[in-house]
Amino acid sequence: MSALSLSVSAERVCRQLDELAAFSDAPAPAVTRVLFTPTDMQGRAFIKRLMEDAGLSFRVDAAGNLFGRWIGSEPNQPAVATGSHCDAIPHSGRYDGTVGVIGAIEAVVSLKAAGFQPRRSIDVIMFNAEEPTRYGIGCLGSRIMSGRLSPEAAGELRDQDGETFETTRKSSGCLGKLPSVRISPSKYSAFVELHIEQGPLLEKQNLPIGVVTAVAAPAAFRVTFHGEGGHAGAVLMHERKDALLPAAELTVAVERAAMELGGKDTVATVGILDVHPHAINSIPSRAEMTVDVRDIDLQRRDLVLEVIKRYAAEVAQNRGMKMNLEMINADPPAKCDVQVIAAIQAAAEEAKLPALPMISRAYHDSLFMALIAPTSMIFIPCRGGVSHRPDEYASPAAIRGGVEVLARTLARLSHS
Amino acid sequence: MSALSLSVSAERVCRQLDELAAFSDAPAPAVTRVLFTPTDMQGRAFIKRLMEDAGLSFRVDAAGNLFGRWIGSEPNQPAVATGSHCDAIPHSGRYDGTVGVIGAIEAVVSLKAAGFQPRRSIDVIMFNAEEPTRYGIGCLGSRIMSGRLSPEAAGELRDQDGETFETTRKSSGCLGKLPSVRISPSKYSAFVELHIEQGPLLEKQNLPIGVVTAVAAPAAFRVTFHGEGGHAGAVLMHERKDALLPAAELTVAVERAAMELGGKDTVATVGILDVHPHAINSIPSRAEMTVDVRDIDLQRRDLVLEVIKRYAAEVAQNRGMKMNLEMINADPPAKCDVQVIAAIQAAAEEAKLPALPMISRAYHDSLFMALIAPTSMIFIPCRGGVSHRPDEYASPAAIRGGVEVLARTLARLSHS
Repeated sequence: MSALSLSVSAERVCRQLDELAAFSDAPAPAVTRVLFTPTDMQGRAFIKRLMEDAGLSFRVDAAGNLFGRWIGSEPNQPAVATGSHCDAIPHSGRYDGTVGVIGAIEAVVSLKAAGFQPRRSIDVIMFNAEEPTRYGIGCLGSRIMSGRLSPEAAGELRDQDGETFETTRKSSGCLGKLPSVRISPSKYSAFVELHIEQGPLLEKQNLPIGVVTAVAAPAAFRVTFHGEGGHAGAVLMHERKDALLPAAELTVAVERAAMELGGKDTVATVGILDVHPHAINSIPSRAEMTVDVRDIDLQRRDLVLEVIKRYAAEVAQNRGMKMNLEMINADPPAKCDVQVIAAIQAAAEEAKLPALPMISRAYHDSLFMALIAPTSMIFIPCRGGVSHRPDEYASPAAIRGGVEVLARTLARLSHS
Repeated sequence: MSALSLSVSAERVCRQLDELAAFSDAPAPAVTRVLFTPTDMQGRAFIKRLMEDAGLSFRVDAAGNLFGRWIGSEPNQPAVATGSHCDAIPHSGRYDGTVGVIGAIEAVVSLKAAGFQPRRSIDVIMFNAEEPTRYGIGCLGSRIMSGRLSPEAAGELRDQDGETFETTRKSSGCLGKLPSVRISPSKYSAFVELHIEQGPLLEKQNLPIGVVTAVAAPAAFRVTFHGEGGHAGAVLMHERKDALLPAAELTVAVERAAMELGGKDTVATVGILDVHPHAINSIPSRAEMTVDVRDIDLQRRDLVLEVIKRYAAEVAQNRGMKMNLEMINADPPAKCDVQVIAAIQAAAEEAKLPALPMISRAYHDSLFMALIAPTSMIFIPCRGGVSHRPDEYASPAAIRGGVEVLARTLARLSHS
């Protein structure tokens, strides 16, 4: 293993990331790529080509997850899997997720060039819709794979136009039935995901590699306030039921709850707020918003969540308005596997890249893969710790380091 | 004059209102009809046909305002004008504005049937884009007519797609140049607008007619907060610049300012609030909102306006964010003309319909017509005082009364 002389091409990975970023519904440098839209279909075809060019045997499952397999010398043994996602929320960047897919293909290419022969097969996976843009729920592909989301519930998810996932996946060419997507815990001996950190720690400490020991627990819900519309000139203040006002009060309270009741790692965000009928001179009759709360501590997260939910009911009641609250997801946090962590640490040492054990505050397909396989993640630094923005950036050197550590980790896990 | 025996058909007016309401981009009973969209073009063709069927000589000006003229026996005398608008904000109703256009045509039809001969010519006007939906500014047509908005500034207005009014009006078939839209103060001896009250007073007092003595002064501005985006999981609370938070604080403050600093008639509304990039798991990097403040007292309105503007700067500064504030309009209130008021009162008496002198808190094309002609308005009750909603409603009896008073007022003004 230690004799493995790897030549990872950061230049090739960055060029492929740029090529993928061109499939976007937002003008460069912003990237928007939403599940099963024409640009997403182009992106998927691009990844398929890369997998095939790398000599991987390609398949797509009924949910649209892509798999490229490098068949090992003992193909009946549980395989090793790696991968991430290629969808991008509106006006975001080109590194989130994509580095873990294109980087995984590059890891395979470099291992092949070095003459490495896998014992266990190695699967490179592109998970579908890690981002919740289209169906309001994150990690759609890995949720179904892991059994966390039932095939029935998945099929019935609807997008903003009312179209179900079942309809869209079929019209997008995903054959077979959704229950076939489920992966048995005996299929993979390990899963490892390469990803940009999406936080500032590695950059601040000038470290090239993070080894993830736990993934924070996310929860999200949607609240709708139903008030009464009317002409902004004609209805006096004390006669109003302006639906935006409780939504604004709740937005302010969401920040307060996270800061006052949570810990350092508690975050709470209102990312969507929509006003109806949306006219300068019209009193809002309806306001709809999302609240996203995360923490590495499940109890503390649920405390903050409960306080916010109670407050939503309270502001609605104070103003005599109806309110609907709908949970989107509330997943438990994931602990990473000590042996996969150890393999990453050994690989980083081999590559002479110092590695920092750390927690992932963002959530990833790894959260769900951890339910069916020993899992950990490799983080690389990103500039300013920012992501989900057009100026999201990871340097070629950071990417090269991440891919090399991933390749060496896969080599170890394949022979373990 | 008093010999005039009028037969107004409320049934015909209501049928025509229903026909017009069918040209809508929202499903019935809601109406959405935005300037120069295909449905608006259909609505305009419908009004043109009604004018021509009534024997009026039709013209359209360079801004798209429609005119139907009944030529009087002294065509060189300043004419009498009446009219209102037919555009409808998203998801509103079928009576706002339209009653004053279709009702004016019915007034002409009933005067003709009664054998009335006008001395001064009578113009029925359908003003363009009284609602600010497309270009963010209300009363576009009457603003240009009255000279309150210069042809240059009007031409440069842009819609959300960045298309200028100059481009759109031309591609919608409005010939000539915008400066030709301006109307000289010598053109009209009087202007009178029939409109639903959009408030509860007439209904509460069970009175069929309101005579408007003043139109409240509206002011509106747009505020944009520029924060920093990022991943909702990865960026800690104290590291954030979430652009939605100052917007939410300002929204709450807008209500407070109107209620604590204003009088009974002071109203302030946030009708639009948009969040960018608009994803559950993304910290808002930008929030854009509108603030609309109205009062019948200019000084008090401007006090409330100033307090809100100062607060917008303050919340932005407290959070270390950039803020842009752009005034959309800040128009002075209009006093109505005593002679036009007297003509309406005499007409109402003739029709045996008690009339209540009142203030218009909503703003209308009359606000701008008052700059170039002696002006007043006739209000009729609407159910619950509501408007800008799908359930907006005026009864056939209320409409019949309003049209009769309008017809008798036009007859008087034409011979005055």
